[in-house]
Amino acid sequence: PACLASIPVSDGLEQLGADGLYREILRDETVLRLKELGKISDGEGFLERTFLSPASFRATDVIISWMKDAGLTTWVDQMGNIHGRFEPSNSTDKALLIGSHMVRTINSLFHAVILLVIKELSLTKGVLYLKQKKQDTVIDAGMYDGALGIICAISALKVLRVTGKLQRLTRPVEVIAFSDEEGVRFQTTFLGSAAVAGILPESILQVSDKSGTTVQEALRLNSFEASAAALGQVKYSPESVGSYVEVHLEQGPVLEALRYPLGVVKGIAGQTRLKVIVDGSQGHAGTVPMKLRRDPMVAAAELVVTLEGLCKDPSRFLTYDEECGCFTEESLAGLVCTVGELLTWPSASNVIPGQVNFTVDIRAMDDLVRETIVASFSRIVMQRCDHRLVDCAVEHKHSAAATPCDPELTAQLKRATRSAVSAMAPGGHGHAGAESTATPVLMSGAGHDAMAMARLTRVGMLFVRCRGGVSHSPEEHVAEDDVWAAGLALLRFLDQHAVAEL
Amino acid sequence: PACLASIPVSDGLEQLGADGLYREILRDETVLRLKELGKISDGEGFLERTFLSPASFRATDVIISWMKDAGLTTWVDQMGNIHGRFEPSNSTDKALLIGSHMVRTINSLFHAVILLVIKELSLTKGVLYLKQKKQDTVIDAGMYDGALGIICAISALKVLRVTGKLQRLTRPVEVIAFSDEEGVRFQTTFLGSAAVAGILPESILQVSDKSGTTVQEALRLNSFEASAAALGQVKYSPESVGSYVEVHLEQGPVLEALRYPLGVVKGIAGQTRLKVIVDGSQGHAGTVPMKLRRDPMVAAAELVVTLEGLCKDPSRFLTYDEECGCFTEESLAGLVCTVGELLTWPSASNVIPGQVNFTVDIRAMDDLVRETIVASFSRIVMQRCDHRLVDCAVEHKHSAAATPCDPELTAQLKRATRSAVSAMAPGGHGHAGAESTATPVLMSGAGHDAMAMARLTRVGMLFVRCRGGVSHSPEEHVAEDDVWAAGLALLRFLDQHAVAEL
Repeated sequence: PACLASIPVSDGLEQLGADGLYREILRDETVLRLKELGKISDGEGFLERTFLSPASFRATDVIISWMKDAGLTTWVDQMGNIHGRFEPSNSTDKALLIGSHMVRTINSLFHAVILLVIKELSLTKGVLYLKQKKQDTVIDAGMYDGALGIICAISALKVLRVTGKLQRLTRPVEVIAFSDEEGVRFQTTFLGSAAVAGILPESILQVSDKSGTTVQEALRLNSFEASAAALGQVKYSPESVGSYVEVHLEQGPVLEALRYPLGVVKGIAGQTRLKVIVDGSQGHAGTVPMKLRRDPMVAAAELVVTLEGLCKDPSRFLTYDEECGCFTEESLAGLVCTVGELLTWPSASNVIPGQVNFTVDIRAMDDLVRETIVASFSRIVMQRCDHRLVDCAVEHKHSAAATPCDPELTAQLKRATRSAVSAMAPGGHGHAGAESTATPVLMSGAGHDAMAMARLTRVGMLFVRCRGGVSHSPEEHVAEDDVWAAGLALLRFLDQHAVAEL
Repeated sequence: PACLASIPVSDGLEQLGADGLYREILRDETVLRLKELGKISDGEGFLERTFLSPASFRATDVIISWMKDAGLTTWVDQMGNIHGRFEPSNSTDKALLIGSHMVRTINSLFHAVILLVIKELSLTKGVLYLKQKKQDTVIDAGMYDGALGIICAISALKVLRVTGKLQRLTRPVEVIAFSDEEGVRFQTTFLGSAAVAGILPESILQVSDKSGTTVQEALRLNSFEASAAALGQVKYSPESVGSYVEVHLEQGPVLEALRYPLGVVKGIAGQTRLKVIVDGSQGHAGTVPMKLRRDPMVAAAELVVTLEGLCKDPSRFLTYDEECGCFTEESLAGLVCTVGELLTWPSASNVIPGQVNFTVDIRAMDDLVRETIVASFSRIVMQRCDHRLVDCAVEHKHSAAATPCDPELTAQLKRATRSAVSAMAPGGHGHAGAESTATPVLMSGAGHDAMAMARLTRVGMLFVRCRGGVSHSPEEHVAEDDVWAAGLALLRFLDQHAVAEL
């Protein structure tokens, strides 16, 4: 492969292994590669790579060269996923897969998003109709999301190669760079990992993007076979896979608040999305006395505050059953509820609104907790609306169950993290005090490829601290030492999990 | 004048006077004329007449003919106001003016309004800018707003004419149809009444409408003089005017709730408009734990609920000083607070907003009450925002003092109302039970020409019940019997106030 900012390592094998920290590969080279991959974009001056886009193929070439540099055998499957595998000659063990997504596009709104809301009204037979169009356009993305997990894995395997440990692997180890995660182009998430997990329906081939191009056509334009049979070949059999591990930036502020570089993930939260519609009596702000009002704005505001109370302090509202252990401290701790969007109609300062709508996003590790919160909130909506003489409706828009991570993998990742952070701390690498803290255990509130892979095998995840909890933005940042810590933790996990003792 | 749906009355003078209720003029003819005037529009299929528009001149001709039919001397002044006056031959008393507005356009949003909100975002040097354009377009108006007060006055004077009482008037009585109230075209309210009251600055002549036409040009195009001198001629001297009375539909639900056709107005509320800006920490709905959030949505919602509490139950929050009598039950009763508009940014279901803005509209009869509420609310905003670690700003957008009505005029209108409603009740005209109720005393939360006229003379107002509190909409409706009650109350007021006893 061409020289892709890789640092010649063969010259200094002795120094590299000296402190067991492999700073040159796990920090310096990984960071250089993150920056290089972050420059490969479909746009100029910002980062965007969509599924099967020209930039995604340029990124593919680069990733393949890095995989080869780590001593892996590479190929691209029929969904565009990039694989780099080391197959021990005499192993019959199930494979360890390590992956994340290479396509950098998002469908969730974050810092750098243009949002256009047009409220269009039409008057038909004296009744006003409100149409609402919304257009989300991602104008930039961060360079760590997805890429961090792929490059860390490649770097850890490269350390195994340069230290001669690759030959001592007891089981097949494979890095996968999934071709699509966030699904902006075809509005379907986890295209790549779902295909590997075998949960992608054949009908996906007929889904169209905005220009009318189907997934099948897009694949064929890029010389993929794009048939049901080809999709079947992408699928891994559960018998061949032992586990899936993913390193990802946290995309939240918890690790930063705990002043710890890494955390293990106990699971990916389940989610419920609701829309609450509050209908009241529109009126003139000057002429309707407070006591004659049926004001949907105040009713909605009261519900927003109530929802926060439910999720911030759930034990005040939920019955905790000691017997069933339904609501443990731990299961309640990860509960989050958000009202991100609230619309008033007609939205004028001198008019009591006639209707107010708002969205509710409830996530929790424990599905029963989430369902109980949804039921409690829905009941409170009805009670409060009755009390205020406004008409309310709660629409269920989406529900997804939680994905728990495997306890054994999580314990191994926790040990590897503790070992890595302890090893780095005495050297004064900025993690002072960290070694005395227990490795944080987090819930993932955002979705990840591990959700799809959990349908194939047991999964484990490692989170890396990011600045300000910001992701999906050019402001996304992971400290160089935290990149290093992630690589080292993954290396120590590989040591435990897949490398034979001498 | 041409026959304008007026009912010949000379034939049945005896029956007309028989029960003292003058149903044919005060109900039947008034309602016919309201419908006729409601058909004179600049548009087809809906009602709109702007200042100096073609339809406004057609309406002028019709109103002049009705004034003449009532025995009045008519003229149009240099601001387009229509005057119809009866001048007793040997009176030196100050004139009683009775008026309302003839131009039917609105700038406050109500039932039938197209609202277009476009949030436009631009990204400059990594900072997002939110521009917001709003366009309000009135697509229809009601036929009672303004017209009711003008036609009721003409009808009451017509009864004086046909019953021979016009000659017994002890003071000049003049009906004025003001040429502009809501000021859509030139964005200046009360053009007509402000000119009569002498509070219109000369600079008004240079104000432009959207097409660039100034008030002066528009007036000259229609053969008005449009000079500072001409404006000066429109102004009445305070010495020549004794009082101003206005009949207007309530535009609120109070009289309907009280099941009473009429109410007297104790004053027009003062108003403060605020904008509250709450800045928090934008974040992913799934990844930021409840306790690490600085959520401006929940903070704003809490403030909306708090504001309602302040205004619904002010005695709980405000110190009532028995000595100064600042906050009497009466002054607190008319207090209204409204949040009509609330905007979240970026407004996506899976994002904790970074900023939430909302409008606050506070109105009260008592200026000190209003100012105290504004100060209390502003203080609470700062306290709550500090508590939640969000940054809040309260911007003062507009303040106007209250206009109290004259107690003597109000007492006379009250007596006249009681007398009219009692007279109608025994005949079973749908006001059963009303006579046992005291005449309601209301605050006007909306602005009226009486606000401008109060700068010239003492003012009194009579409100007429409307269906559902709805105004500024084709749905605006006043029952025919309520139109009658208004005319009869005005007639009895004239009887008391300006007609000599035999």
